[in-house]
Amino acid sequence: MKATAKAHTNIALIKYWGKRNESIILPTNSSLSLTLDGFYTTTSVHFSEEYTQDKFILNERVVEGEQYRRVSEFLDLIRQQAGKSLYAKVDSTNEVPTAAGFASSASGFAALAAAGTKAIGQNMSDRELSALTRQGSGSACRSIYGGFAEWEMGAEEDGSDSYAVPIAPAEHWDLRVAAVVLSSTAKKVSSRAGMKRTVETSPFYQGWLNSIPTDMSQIKEGIKERDFQKVGEVAEANCLKMHATTLGANPPFTYWHDTTMTVMQTVRDLREKGIPAYFTIDAGPNVKVLYLPENEEVIEKTLRNIPGVADIRLSRPGQGVTYL
Amino acid sequence: MKATAKAHTNIALIKYWGKRNESIILPTNSSLSLTLDGFYTTTSVHFSEEYTQDKFILNERVVEGEQYRRVSEFLDLIRQQAGKSLYAKVDSTNEVPTAAGFASSASGFAALAAAGTKAIGQNMSDRELSALTRQGSGSACRSIYGGFAEWEMGAEEDGSDSYAVPIAPAEHWDLRVAAVVLSSTAKKVSSRAGMKRTVETSPFYQGWLNSIPTDMSQIKEGIKERDFQKVGEVAEANCLKMHATTLGANPPFTYWHDTTMTVMQTVRDLREKGIPAYFTIDAGPNVKVLYLPENEEVIEKTLRNIPGVADIRLSRPGQGVTYL
Repeated sequence: MKATAKAHTNIALIKYWGKRNESIILPTNSSLSLTLDGFYTTTSVHFSEEYTQDKFILNERVVEGEQYRRVSEFLDLIRQQAGKSLYAKVDSTNEVPTAAGFASSASGFAALAAAGTKAIGQNMSDRELSALTRQGSGSACRSIYGGFAEWEMGAEEDGSDSYAVPIAPAEHWDLRVAAVVLSSTAKKVSSRAGMKRTVETSPFYQGWLNSIPTDMSQIKEGIKERDFQKVGEVAEANCLKMHATTLGANPPFTYWHDTTMTVMQTVRDLREKGIPAYFTIDAGPNVKVLYLPENEEVIEKTLRNIPGVADIRLSRPGQGVTYL
Repeated sequence: MKATAKAHTNIALIKYWGKRNESIILPTNSSLSLTLDGFYTTTSVHFSEEYTQDKFILNERVVEGEQYRRVSEFLDLIRQQAGKSLYAKVDSTNEVPTAAGFASSASGFAALAAAGTKAIGQNMSDRELSALTRQGSGSACRSIYGGFAEWEMGAEEDGSDSYAVPIAPAEHWDLRVAAVVLSSTAKKVSSRAGMKRTVETSPFYQGWLNSIPTDMSQIKEGIKERDFQKVGEVAEANCLKMHATTLGANPPFTYWHDTTMTVMQTVRDLREKGIPAYFTIDAGPNVKVLYLPENEEVIEKTLRNIPGVADIRLSRPGQGVTYL
């Protein structure tokens, strides 16, 4: 009763920003992402009658507290679906540096769901696996697939129609992402808290929701046509709208630092010089820059020269969940 | 037929951000400002049968082009109301450094309206003068009054009920403003164009409008009670909302630079250290910091030490229009 799975993190081009149900994680809007080759989690799950409680090891260290609780509660879901009550040992290795500003919970819960269900003997469809993964960490449900994936928000109260579907595989388009790591990355409001405060208090939240269907159909067209300008413009505008909603929250907040602004301006300057590049930013100060392979050298060099930038991590489109 | 008037610029604490009528300048929301002692325009207007066209001198230089056209068209309004058709010589001196990021059009049109109507022999009430001034430059209508003034948006199509009214005189409260002048202040989208694009394309514009009545009643309470925290929090939140609307425009834009973010963060840090201070930002990268007299020294020193800040200009509440 042991299995090992590998899952990559993903970067949202249409952002997940708001929950309609906090306990089973149902979103207020659909989102779309690109799974990334460079950042992943490998997880082994071993269910055994010999264990008297769950155990979670991350990067060779035993984890306790809140992180342990989330993993153990997710194992409860797996046990429940399988009708079994065995404890498990979970052993994870993260290749998602926290400083890069990617959510390691995306690759983490995707790998945990895949390895856990296989270990307990369940044979799930991708959609079933995605819907299960969603309940561990919302954005993780998109990491079941490689390349471009859409998390369809669904309409059912039980979440049965809220899962990700594949839009285009990694091989469809070699769209690249540079993660710009800032020297100072202190984050004062967590994604979870920021999302909640925004949904509850921002006068812009309805405007955000209203704008999603158009963004979604445009970016899907752009992906299909491999139209970099279309995809980039929609992704950048969508990110700016997400961050705008936080400025209207009560009390207002922002995830941006001064260097975040500098990187955004640098990307706009690159475009003015004829080098196509677009940015997107999650719930933190780091910036991810979308670019095409032929511009990799100039993109990396330009970003690395910005004062306040600590590191640049490049990535290509990645595969979905695999079993090792 | 000659008169001279002096008017001060003002800083909006509840922002004017959108027009419902572009030609006679009717706003989509009411706004509220503090008139500032430190920045003003002195203007002489001389109507004479000897002139064969209008002439506009600003800081001892003859002005032509767009700026001349705006002044001459405003003189047309004055001539029309007075039923006279004389040309005028307008001689203005601006003590509003462009780099400080204040709209010199506010003090400019208030002084022009006051001097022009007096020179042509009209005796206007403050409300009439404010409604006239509004048609030269929207925010200028608030500069008729000293201290705190509200521009009531009005409801009439002819603009007859869209003018500023006094809320509290300069003597009511010694609330101070530090204008933080950034080294690099290039502005890519004018206030006028930015406002228009936002009204027409931002999904957040309705949310902005919906939030104004509460902001307005709260800040008026705060001014009445001289409650610095209340006034500061509302002003800062209102400014963030205004700027958030631009991030949702199509195409999106922002007036903020990296140093704008640094100054905002510095103000938040001052508060965390127990020094009350709040920021507000108009349609440009410069930041204005609200503070109380007892903290002037630490505020000025802290702001002056921020890299990328070129100058700090301090101001107190100022008087309304005066005739010299």
